[in-house]
Amino acid sequence: MIPSKTALILIEYQNDFTTLGGVMHEAVKTCMEQTNMLENTSNALINARQKGVKIIYAPITFSEDYREINSNIYGALKNVLQAKAFRKNSWGGEITDHLKPEANDIIVEGKRGLDAFYSTNLDFILRQLDIRHVAICGFLTNCCVESTVRTAYEKGYDVYTLNDCCATTGYEEQHIALTKDLPLFSHVVNHQKWLNSLD
Amino acid sequence: MIPSKTALILIEYQNDFTTLGGVMHEAVKTCMEQTNMLENTSNALINARQKGVKIIYAPITFSEDYREINSNIYGALKNVLQAKAFRKNSWGGEITDHLKPEANDIIVEGKRGLDAFYSTNLDFILRQLDIRHVAICGFLTNCCVESTVRTAYEKGYDVYTLNDCCATTGYEEQHIALTKDLPLFSHVVNHQKWLNSLD
Amino acid sequence: MIPSKTALILIEYQNDFTTLGGVMHEAVKTCMEQTNMLENTSNALINARQKGVKIIYAPITFSEDYREINSNIYGALKNVLQAKAFRKNSWGGEITDHLKPEANDIIVEGKRGLDAFYSTNLDFILRQLDIRHVAICGFLTNCCVESTVRTAYEKGYDVYTLNDCCATTGYEEQHIALTKDLPLFSHVVNHQKWLNSLD
Amino acid sequence: MIPSKTALILIEYQNDFTTLGGVMHEAVKTCMEQTNMLENTSNALINARQKGVKIIYAPITFSEDYREINSNIYGALKNVLQAKAFRKNSWGGEITDHLKPEANDIIVEGKRGLDAFYSTNLDFILRQLDIRHVAICGFLTNCCVESTVRTAYEKGYDVYTLNDCCATTGYEEQHIALTKDLPLFSHVVNHQKWLNSLD
Repeated sequence: MIPSKTALILIEYQNDFTTLGGVMHEAVKTCMEQTNMLENTSNALINARQKGVKIIYAPITFSEDYREINSNIYGALKNVLQAKAFRKNSWGGEITDHLKPEANDIIVEGKRGLDAFYSTNLDFILRQLDIRHVAICGFLTNCCVESTVRTAYEKGYDVYTLNDCCATTGYEEQHIALTKDLPLFSHVVNHQKWLNSLD
Repeated sequence: MIPSKTALILIEYQNDFTTLGGVMHEAVKTCMEQTNMLENTSNALINARQKGVKIIYAPITFSEDYREINSNIYGALKNVLQAKAFRKNSWGGEITDHLKPEANDIIVEGKRGLDAFYSTNLDFILRQLDIRHVAICGFLTNCCVESTVRTAYEKGYDVYTLNDCCATTGYEEQHIALTKDLPLFSHVVNHQKWLNSLD
Repeated sequence: MIPSKTALILIEYQNDFTTLGGVMHEAVKTCMEQTNMLENTSNALINARQKGVKIIYAPITFSEDYREINSNIYGALKNVLQAKAFRKNSWGGEITDHLKPEANDIIVEGKRGLDAFYSTNLDFILRQLDIRHVAICGFLTNCCVESTVRTAYEKGYDVYTLNDCCATTGYEEQHIALTKDLPLFSHVVNHQKWLNSLD
Repeated sequence: MIPSKTALILIEYQNDFTTLGGVMHEAVKTCMEQTNMLENTSNALINARQKGVKIIYAPITFSEDYREINSNIYGALKNVLQAKAFRKNSWGGEITDHLKPEANDIIVEGKRGLDAFYSTNLDFILRQLDIRHVAICGFLTNCCVESTVRTAYEKGYDVYTLNDCCATTGYEEQHIALTKDLPLFSHVVNHQKWLNSLD
């Protein structure tokens, strides 16, 4: 893989997931510790940046009153709404201090749904920058990460899921996602193996 | 749910999946038997048609030489390519005799990828017909069915997954998809409960 | 039209277009004066808000160094790049003081391309809010406004183009867009007629 | 341009447009004669095929009763509906004998709307085949051709409009589309110049 044609896409490394006190942290804490995903992501990020891989953050944010979501919403977005997670100007909505964007990184805008493509400028930017290979990591393995992986495959990108840089709410979901579902749409590898495959 | 604003979407009820001799049938046979999904789908189909629900088939097809797919493809489409499944004018690509479309049904065109929205006219037709509620079933629970459910949710439809009208290649994938993943994006119900919720 | 199912979408009412000193203002000034589009839009906006129409702003913005655009870009985005227009934290990128968003309005995020749907969360939000009718106005009649109108039609919305609330760079483009092209994809009406059609 | 990364996309060369007796032929006849677009397209097609350019046809088709379109449709699709044009198994819906697809060409499926991307598998196939450059021609210059050009630009393709291989219903629309609108989203060139730019 040529680094200049490769992007590392970081899904929702925001305090509400990553950090003690975040409204959804408790639900993912065990899985985060088991995979050591914050440290692995940090390692992937530093090395990929150095090699010239394009770093792209995809945070999810909502207005204070969640006016962008239907009040009768069900499923994953209902959980977000009820927890009052990822509000735009709240601490919980901020990207964690451990993985802060640097000056040349790109922060994708618009994300309200689960798939990092559907409500954002991610595809527009990837095409403009002639990115062919994408490595995807973050939260939740079987929700936003997987929806993004599925759509990236559909759009013809060469997709990698970094299996030691993901976390979700339970062991079974994590295990089945990484061993049965995500291999249908991506090369599932650990971050070190992915870094090694970069020229 | 008002039937005229509701669609039943049948994903890939084609001989290569459904029928003895189909190139992918062996892989899904056990799960099909456990869930009795063909008979359940037939029951859902007959009753939904009678109530005025729009019936939409979403088969996947390829040209004889699979020219629409990159020769270096990986993941789920590689399996299709290697098995030579779902060729357009082959018996394996045909919709099973048990669930044949009737004169007023709609057959979605274009499907080459996994998500029944991305490479087809499904969304165009649903919007033209003012469909708000979609019930999704078929093959594979954690692949094409799930990709379609995820995108339908993203697009704001009111989504139902019919849990006794789906099948996949293994018990674990089926179980986790229906109990952990699909509830994030849909109401997961059996076909009888769904039929009862129609006015 | 039921106001709660209707949105007024304002495309790029930013200083670089609207205001003396904006880097693209000179190019649209004559057309703006001929159509009196700022005042008409203000009138449409105030009355639509009062009736309960959802107000949606779709500004276009870029980072200081336009890193989201390919350096070999051609066409409309090349003009933006060369003019250094619509930078995110510049005066030129700000929405004009005459038409400032109010507390309950929605500002669509992500817009980098011309079509207000493709790189943004516009469709996600419209679907969540169950919006069926959209009235579209702004800059340029035959570029971003028309691309947005075309895609809204494709997606099955009931589309209105407000012909006295648009401007572009020349008389011929404006005239042909409003009389020949936009009627293929929308009801082309003046803002007063549109306001009157709201319940 | 490398031919193997280039596609020629032919929009709606179907009898209802191209041929005496087609229900929409009368409306485009004058423009077709002025531009000599059928012969030019034939020349572009033969030479591009020979050079290894991927040939892609994008016909529009409907079922006999137009069940895929809302009965209250307005705009361009209303014209199609009223004329009973482009029915799937009718002579009018067939691709003209002068420009018949050959064995290795691709025929895009699903097209119901105007934009050849939105309701089809065009983008899926272009990405799978790693196509970067697209040359677009056909009917109508300011309707389906232009919608397709606009979306191709949005999606980051390198877009060419072949100005002597297009036709529409009037001189003014043709002229403004080719000189003012399409240059915002594509390189507008004649087919000979485009052929010469292929390696």
